[in-house]
Amino acid sequence: MDKYNFKRLPTHIGIIPDGNRRWAQNKGFDKKDGYKFGIDPGVELFNLCSQIGINEVTFYGFTKDNTKRPADQTKEFRNACVESVMRLTHTDCEILVVGDAESSLFPEELLPFTKRKKFGKGGIKANFLINYGWEWDVSKYDKSVRKKGFINNIASSDISRMDLIIRWGGRCRLSGFLPVQSVYSDFYIINDFWPDFNAEHFYEALEWYEGQDVTLGG
Amino acid sequence: MDKYNFKRLPTHIGIIPDGNRRWAQNKGFDKKDGYKFGIDPGVELFNLCSQIGINEVTFYGFTKDNTKRPADQTKEFRNACVESVMRLTHTDCEILVVGDAESSLFPEELLPFTKRKKFGKGGIKANFLINYGWEWDVSKYDKSVRKKGFINNIASSDISRMDLIIRWGGRCRLSGFLPVQSVYSDFYIINDFWPDFNAEHFYEALEWYEGQDVTLGG
Repeated sequence: MDKYNFKRLPTHIGIIPDGNRRWAQNKGFDKKDGYKFGIDPGVELFNLCSQIGINEVTFYGFTKDNTKRPADQTKEFRNACVESVMRLTHTDCEILVVGDAESSLFPEELLPFTKRKKFGKGGIKANFLINYGWEWDVSKYDKSVRKKGFINNIASSDISRMDLIIRWGGRCRLSGFLPVQSVYSDFYIINDFWPDFNAEHFYEALEWYEGQDVTLGG
Repeated sequence: MDKYNFKRLPTHIGIIPDGNRRWAQNKGFDKKDGYKFGIDPGVELFNLCSQIGINEVTFYGFTKDNTKRPADQTKEFRNACVESVMRLTHTDCEILVVGDAESSLFPEELLPFTKRKKFGKGGIKANFLINYGWEWDVSKYDKSVRKKGFINNIASSDISRMDLIIRWGGRCRLSGFLPVQSVYSDFYIINDFWPDFNAEHFYEALEWYEGQDVTLGG
């Protein structure tokens, strides 16, 4: 990291940790066995964000669409998400879980996190989308009781606009990831699968981001 | 084109024709003078889409944010957009213009196109976003009188979900381009500036798209 000297850092980074199943298949494992190898990378990436002074990180955990996958896979990614959240409770951060908590597919262990909770000295915000759906999110918008700004009236209103979205696994798409908070985000794509995460990926993304201009649509 | 033989084509392509001002500066012109060089490329790209059998094409014309630019630029991109729409009226297509037509910044000449109009034998849908704003679009959503599906209740409800978005000018971001219709789109980025469009760009994008899998978030 010492070789990097960032002058302009993103305030809020979105993470799409894709490619767990493809990674598992390449290793000769069952698809479902990829997810647990995604837990350590998440904690490591979070720690890097924290050290470098990022204000907010949002992890794309799993969606309502994802839960239509085979039951053994669903079980594994739910477990991996719960474990990831729990691991961060041992750090200094403020955790929020956003997703449809009225559904039985929402992990019970994560219910206490549907309001932001501070751990240790607090500081960096860590958001997880769990049993999230973009349509579920924006359909909460209610014209009749609105605050100023569309973003302040949806289910994910406690998550701010993202400056940079990093996606692993080579695909260049949002896959329903926070359509409102991503309107002006820069997307950086890493071809490696998520379980193969390493710190250089993160620094490369930040270096690339520094070369982008900020226009906010103007 | 004969060397290509596409097996899976996108139904709907979104076009972000970025880089007109940077192109003009590189040529030693005024920034404002880049826009008119973007008209021919748009017609050419539209014709390619039509020939190959694409169902719907959406051009990101200009946004409400864009109109905060210097007046000479605003005048030029408005003219380029009007001219682009008019050029397509001489082809076989069905044109729709979506944007805030209640504002004085909406070109009067385009008012007749705020309902889809058929030209020649019709067929391919050509959409233009003119004085568009993502927040203006989604804020039309009204819980109380809704049809099924968020997408059917916003200002851009007559524009379908996009499969592929091609952006010229090297930036990897949506810049507020149809946040709902882009949730599952694949993004393909071309580094050349829009006025330097050539047919190979389009075929390369289609070839790349063919290698992507369709999951719709599943």
